[in-house]
Amino acid sequence: MQDDAAFQPTARTMPRRKDRAVFDREAVYAILDEALVCHVGFEHAGQVFVIPTAYGRKEDRLIIHGAAMTRMMQNLSGGLSISVTVTILDGLVLARSAFHHSINYRSVVILGTASVVSDEAEKLEALRVFTEHVIPGRWAEVRGPTEKELKLTTVLELPINEVSAKVRTGPPVDDREDYGLDVWAGELPLRQTPGIPVPDPALRPGIEVPEHVRQYGNRL
Amino acid sequence: MQDDAAFQPTARTMPRRKDRAVFDREAVYAILDEALVCHVGFEHAGQVFVIPTAYGRKEDRLIIHGAAMTRMMQNLSGGLSISVTVTILDGLVLARSAFHHSINYRSVVILGTASVVSDEAEKLEALRVFTEHVIPGRWAEVRGPTEKELKLTTVLELPINEVSAKVRTGPPVDDREDYGLDVWAGELPLRQTPGIPVPDPALRPGIEVPEHVRQYGNRL
Repeated sequence: MQDDAAFQPTARTMPRRKDRAVFDREAVYAILDEALVCHVGFEHAGQVFVIPTAYGRKEDRLIIHGAAMTRMMQNLSGGLSISVTVTILDGLVLARSAFHHSINYRSVVILGTASVVSDEAEKLEALRVFTEHVIPGRWAEVRGPTEKELKLTTVLELPINEVSAKVRTGPPVDDREDYGLDVWAGELPLRQTPGIPVPDPALRPGIEVPEHVRQYGNRL
Repeated sequence: MQDDAAFQPTARTMPRRKDRAVFDREAVYAILDEALVCHVGFEHAGQVFVIPTAYGRKEDRLIIHGAAMTRMMQNLSGGLSISVTVTILDGLVLARSAFHHSINYRSVVILGTASVVSDEAEKLEALRVFTEHVIPGRWAEVRGPTEKELKLTTVLELPINEVSAKVRTGPPVDDREDYGLDVWAGELPLRQTPGIPVPDPALRPGIEVPEHVRQYGNRL
């Protein structure tokens, strides 16, 4: 694991627009730790597929998992070169001209090759990290995986190494002559928010919504 | 344009899990019309890239656009086979066992080849559709694109033809012997919500937040 504060851009991760590029390690990790879902891109039989999936992060590795029989897991286990992208939408940027409309967002693109986590203890730890990423406090409260369940699950880790992030923040940037127009301009923030927890209809009576579910808004 | 009510699955879009698959045309369109951002996957020099971008839909075509000089636009204009994936997160599915945790979501995967919209009137119409998808009511209120701006923008359309959707809804499905456990189970709904509009610091005084911005929660 590298200890330096910034990721090294490569020809493949160096963006053409330098003003939005972020290579700072902590900034990249913060985006990865906030988002819930990534989009995994891989090639199979000459066709690119992009599949959404939840994930976790353990230090400098991204953890994904899935049923061993799925197309994505079978493909990724084979050591394909993949791209994993994480995107957080922060707001609509509303300019005075159609042309200068934009979106405030934070995104991370990781390029690399995933490898299968096969050691049972490491696999269990990866699943703990995964679950705690999605909903902190959950792992300790639920029944852990059985040996059979572990066998049915493929866990993959992707080194977070060839990586870049992009961030856009702030108001629109309009052409000088448009600032006089009679058009409202600014940002409309967007945020993922939790609703009211819906108990499983089969929930045993008397079980209260736990703290880690009630407080989920603080996770987002 | 096909008029039948369902998309025809192909070997590439037929999922292994049939229970979550959706091919109904209106259901697919409804997901595309609700989400804001898609993830575009394409190959360049032996590496898959997945890039987030906003989009719109005009009948049976997905519209994306970008600055003509970007890597993605240059690649996609060349007639590459791509994958465009749209994902809406609806909630966390909290089971009694770690293994049965899941996510309620709706996603669409489109496979195909994008083509450049070069006719100026069609391009303008595509940009209108794009803008009205992201924020309905905006196009009529802002300064439209100039000829120069149109030239700087590449507009692509992707036929929505080889496509599949996946939907998961409802409570967790636990193993029978786990229903007696003392663990809260259910769904925690998630929703993209708008915050309070932030005026551009350079906004001319006296311009009120317009209806189409104030009412944006109804769009989401």
